[in-house]
Amino acid sequence: MEQKTEELIEQLRTLVSKMRAYGHAQGVLYYDAATIAPPGGAEDRGKTLAVLSEVSYELQTGEETGKLLAALMARREELDFITRREVSELWRDYERTKKIPKEEYIAYNVLLNEADAVWHKAKVESDWPAFRPYMEKIVAFNKKLAAWLAPEKKPYDALLDQYERGLTMETLDAFFDVLKERLVPLIRRVAEKGQPDCAFIHQEFPIEQQRKLSDWLMSAIGIDREYCSIGETEHPFTDGYSKHDVRITTHYHLDDPLSSLFSVVHEGGHALYELHSGDELEDTMLSGGASMSIHESQSRFFENIIGRSRGFIHNLLPKLQELFPQQMEGVTEDMLYRAANIAEPGLIRTEADELSYCLHVMLRYELEKQLMEGSLAVADLPSAWNAKVKEYLGLDVPDDRRGVLQDSHWSGGSIGYFPSYALGSAYGAQLLAKMKETVDVDAAVASGDLTPILDWLTERIWKKGSLYDPQELFEQAAEAPFDPTYYTDYLKEKYSAIYGL
Amino acid sequence: MEQKTEELIEQLRTLVSKMRAYGHAQGVLYYDAATIAPPGGAEDRGKTLAVLSEVSYELQTGEETGKLLAALMARREELDFITRREVSELWRDYERTKKIPKEEYIAYNVLLNEADAVWHKAKVESDWPAFRPYMEKIVAFNKKLAAWLAPEKKPYDALLDQYERGLTMETLDAFFDVLKERLVPLIRRVAEKGQPDCAFIHQEFPIEQQRKLSDWLMSAIGIDREYCSIGETEHPFTDGYSKHDVRITTHYHLDDPLSSLFSVVHEGGHALYELHSGDELEDTMLSGGASMSIHESQSRFFENIIGRSRGFIHNLLPKLQELFPQQMEGVTEDMLYRAANIAEPGLIRTEADELSYCLHVMLRYELEKQLMEGSLAVADLPSAWNAKVKEYLGLDVPDDRRGVLQDSHWSGGSIGYFPSYALGSAYGAQLLAKMKETVDVDAAVASGDLTPILDWLTERIWKKGSLYDPQELFEQAAEAPFDPTYYTDYLKEKYSAIYGL
Repeated sequence: MEQKTEELIEQLRTLVSKMRAYGHAQGVLYYDAATIAPPGGAEDRGKTLAVLSEVSYELQTGEETGKLLAALMARREELDFITRREVSELWRDYERTKKIPKEEYIAYNVLLNEADAVWHKAKVESDWPAFRPYMEKIVAFNKKLAAWLAPEKKPYDALLDQYERGLTMETLDAFFDVLKERLVPLIRRVAEKGQPDCAFIHQEFPIEQQRKLSDWLMSAIGIDREYCSIGETEHPFTDGYSKHDVRITTHYHLDDPLSSLFSVVHEGGHALYELHSGDELEDTMLSGGASMSIHESQSRFFENIIGRSRGFIHNLLPKLQELFPQQMEGVTEDMLYRAANIAEPGLIRTEADELSYCLHVMLRYELEKQLMEGSLAVADLPSAWNAKVKEYLGLDVPDDRRGVLQDSHWSGGSIGYFPSYALGSAYGAQLLAKMKETVDVDAAVASGDLTPILDWLTERIWKKGSLYDPQELFEQAAEAPFDPTYYTDYLKEKYSAIYGL
Repeated sequence: MEQKTEELIEQLRTLVSKMRAYGHAQGVLYYDAATIAPPGGAEDRGKTLAVLSEVSYELQTGEETGKLLAALMARREELDFITRREVSELWRDYERTKKIPKEEYIAYNVLLNEADAVWHKAKVESDWPAFRPYMEKIVAFNKKLAAWLAPEKKPYDALLDQYERGLTMETLDAFFDVLKERLVPLIRRVAEKGQPDCAFIHQEFPIEQQRKLSDWLMSAIGIDREYCSIGETEHPFTDGYSKHDVRITTHYHLDDPLSSLFSVVHEGGHALYELHSGDELEDTMLSGGASMSIHESQSRFFENIIGRSRGFIHNLLPKLQELFPQQMEGVTEDMLYRAANIAEPGLIRTEADELSYCLHVMLRYELEKQLMEGSLAVADLPSAWNAKVKEYLGLDVPDDRRGVLQDSHWSGGSIGYFPSYALGSAYGAQLLAKMKETVDVDAAVASGDLTPILDWLTERIWKKGSLYDPQELFEQAAEAPFDPTYYTDYLKEKYSAIYGL
């Protein structure tokens, strides 16, 4: 006897609520691991994650799930817009995850829990040999993963598609070519101009006061703290389990307050996106961000386009003077603006200036490509890393902590994620151009009330969750196809003015 | 065909690993809620807990579990000592939990998650009316719970048994009578003596420095930070998911460093107990503490018998002088010892001196008794609370924040827990007497190396986990039945010396 569509939808809601519950529990376990859990607990947490990820796998790929989704797919036309999208996304996940053998899926989750703990320690101690065997296993798994998911594709293309549907090396090669062609000469001209004196920003800024600054920053960009908290981790990140529970983290450096400052604004951009997911998407699989690149377009938009703007610096200065009266004595708005917009190649991606940022991404992209095609062995990764840093940024890497071990992505199992950062940065510049057609962005930032900007982003992106594929969502928002020259033009204009080119 | 015992044991191990995984996940969700989660996330967390606690309930009470445990119970004699105990404990839980209707069990878990969030806010805002409806539901549930669990018993006896097997009002009434009879005259004589001037301890002690003090304290009592972290919460507590993952929390008060100091040592005592559970009990249901009163006997032992001793104060003073040079200028060891051992009734249980502490517990015990027997309505709880504070402590309660809302136990669903604190305090004094027969406790504390004390407690209590019923465990350790006069004698001797009676 055939089931009614309403019954099937009810079963779908039960399935989704379970999936979300297990996702939430595993998410909190990871968050806890990165924030407060004692280091020695990693192994026992692995046992727990093994149990929970087995259930998650079953929920995603089990026979019952398959039958239910197949039945709903057959009646797609009867479903409302949201449910239809949810079912097709789940069906896609079902078909995709089913290709990964269950034992491998669980073992990989357990491996990542351990790898993350090892990486945390290895980074602090600059101990690549400790992390290397984990990286080898992660690369090996990702090669198998690519073959399971899309044997017809090149392995790295199969991985890219996980983070950005449809993204390929062909697209990225062309994108990075544009960036290289336009940015490298610009960076060279900036370098010839020399740097302003920013010694004032490398005094001691007590952490306790920096924590207060974080509170102010979150409020300044419009984050409702009822639904968003802040923690402290080695590597800043954002996690969200619903629009009512989002967390950002930061890392404080005593002699570099701008590091945490822009981390908070960057992660705050991710948080705003999650916090403004549409109410109608709550409790569905579609709430939250559409893809990594769209997510990064928001975080990089807040970090750079908002956070490093004249207007934001104008409002930031009195707050810094209040929190750090001694350190900020005699510092003018212009000095702070220049310090926040230094364009000078450095070793750390998350602290890179806007101009050289994409070169950091590009070198990771190229290394990942080589790892996946097999032309680079994990054992050679540090030397390959260091060579590329020398080539693109002109710098010597003094230790692996500031080199190959600096990011948490690989230890988290993400290969193919990095390009999203560059793509997101470029998306942000094009969205800014569109936004400026109807919103006086500079005036809003200078006024300290970002509401018109938040509203524009809510309407065009945030409230839509994962209702659309990322490329489609971007084009809806920008009302045009993606064009990276918006980004290169934005950078050229901004940095020409700052450095008087 | 009958299954082999080894197969049954293998099934048991799978069951236990699942139970532990769900317990761990739910534990971390609660910990996260109390530490970092944004307040607005409570409702969504409730949805997750509903899903997980349903599985926990199924694991504990399902048909398969029942069959497995029954089969193992029938072969108890074939099982090794640890497995035999584990099976009989699980069987007890199975029979017990099965009596609670599943929907009620899940609904109560969801209620507690919400109640905890409401209580946190209500306490800060001293808003009893906000919490009252939750307290009403919690009391109503506990009445039903008592009837489900042990309809033949008085309701409050049924609840007491949950936290301390076999404990009854009859035992407690007799115990509190001894305390009242011996302590009330002592408290009166101390009061007549007047208090030393302790103004120095109520200056401003920066939180950042207090955090460093916590690190020192944890190390001073022998906690291995590899397996134990510290967080910050409204109400200090300890949680442990295995001997490799224990967390304590504290609450810092700017003008009262002793509050957090003794919280850390108290919670540190709980943590030490969990951290030293026997290796052979790992991954079983028997790791960790035997009961609440045994747990409190350890925490109160460290807080008071160790932490407030001459020797500990002797080692603490230079650390305080290092961290707070200005505030501690001119403070002598004797001044600090007196400040740490002020016996003067106050409003807050967790900050109470050793002498009046049990009166705080007694008043909660009496109120719980009345709530359960129905002679006190929840609506009248604040006025009944305030009247008892006046009667036993001679104080007026200025607001509910410092009155009926001060503890987290009721919002956490625990009715019948409080007596464990008094019982534990008394256990601790008797254990001290026994320990002193073979260990030079004062010398160990004064030397700064607690190893002989930690070893004694490990051998006699900590490593045994839940292998024995609490009363049995205590008698093994003390080599004698429980006798509350050890406690009253200890207090009399200590405070007679301090106040020169």
